[in-house]
Amino acid sequence: MATSTRVARSLRSVKLSSRTQCIQRVRPVTQVRWISGATTEPQQPGEKRSTKTAPAKTVKFTSETYPQIQRHSKFSQLTKEHVEYFKNLLGSESAVIDGVTKDASEDIEPYNSDWMRKYRGHAKLVLKPQSTEEVSKILKYCNDNMLAVVPQGGNTGLVGGSVPVFDEIVINLQRMNQIRSFDEVSGILVADAGVILEVADNFLAEKNHIFPLDLGAKGSCQIGGNVAANAGGLRLLRYGSLHGNVLGIEAVLPDGTIVDDLSKLRKNNTGYDLKQLFIGGEGTIGIVTAISILCPQRSPAINVAYFGLESYEQVQNLFRQAKSKLSEILSAFELMDGRTQKLLVQASGKKLPLEGEYPFYALIETSGSNTDHDSEKLNSLLEDVMENGIVSDGTLAQDQTQIQELWSCREGIPEHLGHWGGVYKYDLSIPIASMYDLVNDVRDRLTKAGLVGDDDSYPVVDVVGYGHMGDSNLHLNVPVRSYDKRVEKELEPFVYEWVQSKNGSISAEHGLGLQKRPYIGYSRSEIMVKLMKQIKDLYDPKGIMNPYKYL
Amino acid sequence: MATSTRVARSLRSVKLSSRTQCIQRVRPVTQVRWISGATTEPQQPGEKRSTKTAPAKTVKFTSETYPQIQRHSKFSQLTKEHVEYFKNLLGSESAVIDGVTKDASEDIEPYNSDWMRKYRGHAKLVLKPQSTEEVSKILKYCNDNMLAVVPQGGNTGLVGGSVPVFDEIVINLQRMNQIRSFDEVSGILVADAGVILEVADNFLAEKNHIFPLDLGAKGSCQIGGNVAANAGGLRLLRYGSLHGNVLGIEAVLPDGTIVDDLSKLRKNNTGYDLKQLFIGGEGTIGIVTAISILCPQRSPAINVAYFGLESYEQVQNLFRQAKSKLSEILSAFELMDGRTQKLLVQASGKKLPLEGEYPFYALIETSGSNTDHDSEKLNSLLEDVMENGIVSDGTLAQDQTQIQELWSCREGIPEHLGHWGGVYKYDLSIPIASMYDLVNDVRDRLTKAGLVGDDDSYPVVDVVGYGHMGDSNLHLNVPVRSYDKRVEKELEPFVYEWVQSKNGSISAEHGLGLQKRPYIGYSRSEIMVKLMKQIKDLYDPKGIMNPYKYL
Repeated sequence: MATSTRVARSLRSVKLSSRTQCIQRVRPVTQVRWISGATTEPQQPGEKRSTKTAPAKTVKFTSETYPQIQRHSKFSQLTKEHVEYFKNLLGSESAVIDGVTKDASEDIEPYNSDWMRKYRGHAKLVLKPQSTEEVSKILKYCNDNMLAVVPQGGNTGLVGGSVPVFDEIVINLQRMNQIRSFDEVSGILVADAGVILEVADNFLAEKNHIFPLDLGAKGSCQIGGNVAANAGGLRLLRYGSLHGNVLGIEAVLPDGTIVDDLSKLRKNNTGYDLKQLFIGGEGTIGIVTAISILCPQRSPAINVAYFGLESYEQVQNLFRQAKSKLSEILSAFELMDGRTQKLLVQASGKKLPLEGEYPFYALIETSGSNTDHDSEKLNSLLEDVMENGIVSDGTLAQDQTQIQELWSCREGIPEHLGHWGGVYKYDLSIPIASMYDLVNDVRDRLTKAGLVGDDDSYPVVDVVGYGHMGDSNLHLNVPVRSYDKRVEKELEPFVYEWVQSKNGSISAEHGLGLQKRPYIGYSRSEIMVKLMKQIKDLYDPKGIMNPYKYL
Repeated sequence: MATSTRVARSLRSVKLSSRTQCIQRVRPVTQVRWISGATTEPQQPGEKRSTKTAPAKTVKFTSETYPQIQRHSKFSQLTKEHVEYFKNLLGSESAVIDGVTKDASEDIEPYNSDWMRKYRGHAKLVLKPQSTEEVSKILKYCNDNMLAVVPQGGNTGLVGGSVPVFDEIVINLQRMNQIRSFDEVSGILVADAGVILEVADNFLAEKNHIFPLDLGAKGSCQIGGNVAANAGGLRLLRYGSLHGNVLGIEAVLPDGTIVDDLSKLRKNNTGYDLKQLFIGGEGTIGIVTAISILCPQRSPAINVAYFGLESYEQVQNLFRQAKSKLSEILSAFELMDGRTQKLLVQASGKKLPLEGEYPFYALIETSGSNTDHDSEKLNSLLEDVMENGIVSDGTLAQDQTQIQELWSCREGIPEHLGHWGGVYKYDLSIPIASMYDLVNDVRDRLTKAGLVGDDDSYPVVDVVGYGHMGDSNLHLNVPVRSYDKRVEKELEPFVYEWVQSKNGSISAEHGLGLQKRPYIGYSRSEIMVKLMKQIKDLYDPKGIMNPYKYL
């Protein structure tokens, strides 16, 4: 497991303790890591910031896709006086994109549409405040004048939550991008909401720390948006959720009130923990302008292994063994079914790390402080799962390039599943034991309906499943050649009813946004929804914050 | 570091890798583990449940200690009709202690007073519901009839939050004590609020898991109360806060609404995370009746070391080294100053594990999955901190008895500091670098005021500090021979102003309760307090829940 050996080792035919028989099968990583399993955005190789790469005007307007959603007549129409106020307030020319008094549709388009090309709004004004005070004045003015707004970070969401539906003003946080402080003893970082996740993580890397959240869109997504969406991502299994790691929040309410809850303390039992309402609040009660977050130390030893398995039962066995034997160093346990990996190969031309084909694959990552100890623990696991026939084949990354290559088998999935035309994506939480049953049931259902096939006469390419097994988080994906009402009719409400029957969640980590707003009842009772609406009414009585979404 | 060697090893004169030179200096543990550093209660040896052990009638009534607090005239007086309703509702004789229609003061006394003998109410009715539905009906009736209530778990709080002030009805959760479910794959436990923490942990131990919260009062405190108080305790450094670990809550609002947010999912992004308001809400907006919580696997390898150090600077160095070298296995880092340990010795007659006397002591615990690996990591730390002169002496527990013995040097403190008559206790969060300065400043201040001395003419015995260093959580304690207004005048608002000047918290983990209600302004802005009051008014518009406390 020396990191200097630049090969992957097959576990099938090689004695585990030997480093002599090696098969060179891992190729260099060419694609940038990215993933749908969280609020995310596709990245162009070499491109870090990509609001500009949002899709062109071919995207259908949300108002056309969802004709049942009507613009609230209570909201004012934007006037040149409004625009004048904002120009005076923000000063800089670059802080206001004005499509009200002139044609600026080209410039505004990237802020109007989401990267999935599914949602597109009619916004004519984009504001880019540079301070909390500016955000406060903007919101107060909007609230006083009944102007609807949509808060926007990296615009990497998956449920249409970060783009307007009609003419809501886009308040983009990209210019609030300063790291405010970092304490090396406590590991507590305080930073503006608009700091890009990767920038924050790179900053922390220099201090030997790590941001306790990682996801494929890290090059584009902003930490304020991550918090607003309660992003889950790849390291939740190890470092826990943002509800535990975020120590403080600065936010602005619609009436301009600045919520100064930016505690830098790990413990502070002085009153209700109001900041939690903004974590996962999706910008519906206020705009997060800064966060304080507890960052763990960076682990010097990282190991990644990739396995082929014969059944979902064996994946569960591997997970149990991994939890037991890797314990405190286990940092990721990802599931990919064989169909997912097959489609990845077809779409990307990539070669998988293992020779044979298997119905299931799993990726395990460990992060620890001692390379030898971690390798020993991992070897102990490998010996056990090979001897007991839990895994059929496997390979272990030997260096950073191979680590990235193995990860790309998981992280390349969302990007490449769109290869055939489109993807119906579901982000679900289901008890582990029955998690994969849903994929089979949906496949059976669509097959029986005559919708799945190998040629272009069938809309559905396949029904596949992958996700964060360690968090009981399944991404059910249905790649299609074209979006088709017949497929949709088979999928919904079937999928949501299925999840409800297992007391699962219809949105594990992507949030509600526009897409899942109608379906919250499958995961929450009427009482809970009523109580949530009370909170919305309390903080945003005029309803100007991110309307048409969430609740 | 074999656990079979029943001795502690001095680090001063012994080569670290050698097991030959050992000094037998650790005696068997005679006292039950307990601690003030969290919501807690003293335990009698061998006694697990101790509402009955609450102090006698000698405790001064809270209404006398705080004459400025007046009973709200809006609350109804209890009548025999009210009592009749509750008796019919709860059925069982044992579910109602009726001091309204007869004299039951002896039976009610334990529910009226706190274990510190600081707070005592005038309650005449204690209700012990056995189901969520019963809690719902009780609260609805109280709300409809303007009857104030105080929710009560194990009554182990430190700020007077769990006992009545006037004649509030005590709703004690002790009969709701069922474990509802446990999933061995996910580690998710669902249990009634009245389950005693130690019972839950013992149940989990059989399943090779651990409750992610541990504190000295575990034999008495209830998990619902832990959640309502957002207890911190001894393992927060490792497992994080309840805001991260609690996955779901079932609670009852004053109007009887049952909040059914008892999710068993690690991820569920479907709306505002309302349950967080009940975590640390101290029973002021509703009563927690059940929780769902993520429980980590139990670590088979536990190591505990105890060090003597020459300065607080060196304690900080040790902490940095421990974080770096123990990393993922570090599960506790506790600070005790020399004065604290000296008083412990004087009060308990106990012998400390180290021969010499030091200005500071630290206790480190590791929890991991591999004994050899953990020992190696710990040895590497020990070699480093000995070589670099960071620690002056140290000892390492060799078996479970010694582990308990070392822990007793930390956990015996709160109990024994009361030896001289009383203790002024402050539970504070302060940035680590300046944390101990407060103890010195307070000692200087009280000394200059002529209040500290060795004989009975001085009220103050000493000013000492200890606490959860890993969480920046200091327990400033002022043991006194008698409570004295002169001492109080020197302490307050000085301590709170000092903490405010460092942006610290005046209540790190104990909560606000009655004691700290007036001081929230030192840690929270007016805006934050106003926003919190909005939440209180939203959920408890009539103000019947735990009045006179919190906000």
